[in-house]
Amino acid sequence: MTNQTAPIVTAALLVIGDEILSGRTKDKNIGTVADYLGAIGVDLREVRVVPDEAEAIVEAVNALRARYTYLFTTGGIGPTHDDITADCVAAAFGVPIDVDPRAKAMLLERHKPEDLNEARLRMARIPQGADLVRNPISKAPGFRIGNVFVMAGVPAIMQAMLDEIGPTLETGTKVISDTIEVGNLPEGTYASDLGIIAKAHEAVSIGSYPSMTPNGFANRIVVRGRDAEAVASAREAIGTLVARLRDGTATG
Amino acid sequence: MTNQTAPIVTAALLVIGDEILSGRTKDKNIGTVADYLGAIGVDLREVRVVPDEAEAIVEAVNALRARYTYLFTTGGIGPTHDDITADCVAAAFGVPIDVDPRAKAMLLERHKPEDLNEARLRMARIPQGADLVRNPISKAPGFRIGNVFVMAGVPAIMQAMLDEIGPTLETGTKVISDTIEVGNLPEGTYASDLGIIAKAHEAVSIGSYPSMTPNGFANRIVVRGRDAEAVASAREAIGTLVARLRDGTATG
Repeated sequence: MTNQTAPIVTAALLVIGDEILSGRTKDKNIGTVADYLGAIGVDLREVRVVPDEAEAIVEAVNALRARYTYLFTTGGIGPTHDDITADCVAAAFGVPIDVDPRAKAMLLERHKPEDLNEARLRMARIPQGADLVRNPISKAPGFRIGNVFVMAGVPAIMQAMLDEIGPTLETGTKVISDTIEVGNLPEGTYASDLGIIAKAHEAVSIGSYPSMTPNGFANRIVVRGRDAEAVASAREAIGTLVARLRDGTATG
Repeated sequence: MTNQTAPIVTAALLVIGDEILSGRTKDKNIGTVADYLGAIGVDLREVRVVPDEAEAIVEAVNALRARYTYLFTTGGIGPTHDDITADCVAAAFGVPIDVDPRAKAMLLERHKPEDLNEARLRMARIPQGADLVRNPISKAPGFRIGNVFVMAGVPAIMQAMLDEIGPTLETGTKVISDTIEVGNLPEGTYASDLGIIAKAHEAVSIGSYPSMTPNGFANRIVVRGRDAEAVASAREAIGTLVARLRDGTATG
């Protein structure tokens, strides 16, 4: 696929889990998925976190799969009663769900037949028509149905599944990102001029991101876009602005 | 407010920012807000992350403020062109927005009048009818309009604003949480029995959370509920189950 014809490919992430909303577990998957998708040319456009409740999951799956090229979900595919993601995705698609022989075979790579009890077999319940996503770590697979990819919540397993999924995705032109470190130059001194630069460079998006350090604010300006020349042009204009302000010749 | 009459108070969090979706910045506010709200008896029920785009922000604000007791937003209230949260919240409520004299006075605590340029004055643009939320760190305030609280994205400032907001919130009965560490006992060995316990203790929610360590899985079972006796009763049943499985007398 060449850059000239590459479409814009979008995605949403649905994080399923009471433990994130209660604060007990601090999510690590959002940042991983954002980095991964950005690197292969898929735009992550929305993230939602919902509890382990069927109605909330089904509604979010249907809203997000309709809106974006892809939907990725994390969490809720283990053997316990609170693992209801597969059933909810089946309900969202209106398809039956049952133990899938391919998934059962994967579980048997890890568990002896006599240990494959009813609870563990829950992990082989896959909506009809889905393709499996291999889990090299603990074997219980994720799956793809339509444009929805269902992954585990445990970060190491989620990452392994993402590595399986990545090569199968349609991808668009990658977004190029360039960061200008402006240090302790206050946002308020460059905001007006930066806004003028942003208007003059509409092919890119320009963001200003303050962060706090022990020595006060440290600001960064980030230029993002799909056209390398457009990014470079905006970057040069911002570099000139920042140099001018640092020299104290600005009226700010 | 006594526990007997305390209602269930719910909340959503809307994280506004391209930098989270691009992966450049790893969100820290979701976990902080989840912990804070849980500790004061407000149930965080949903989180969404959306880009710095007016349509997406307005739609999410209106969807979430209608659905939950409170909506908190983080990000997009600085002086630069990509800071559009206040304007979007005004649009969502259908009210005008202009420079607010109270907010301007707060900015003057930090900036000399001659430094309060047009860009910095953007930080004093507040939707009509909103109450201000003090910002002890960099002065530019957040605000509350209706059931929506608009906060900064920089974690330290967000936390300071949350501390300002907390005491003003209606709160419900706190959720009590009790964790049973089950170590390397596989989920598949206790999942069926845990499901039976969950059905017998419907006043609580029971979750099983695997995590990976260098030595393999380490699992935790968490009981959450508003009634201390119900939580204790479920915890006891789970403790008995885990002890039985550890003794190897289970059929799991």
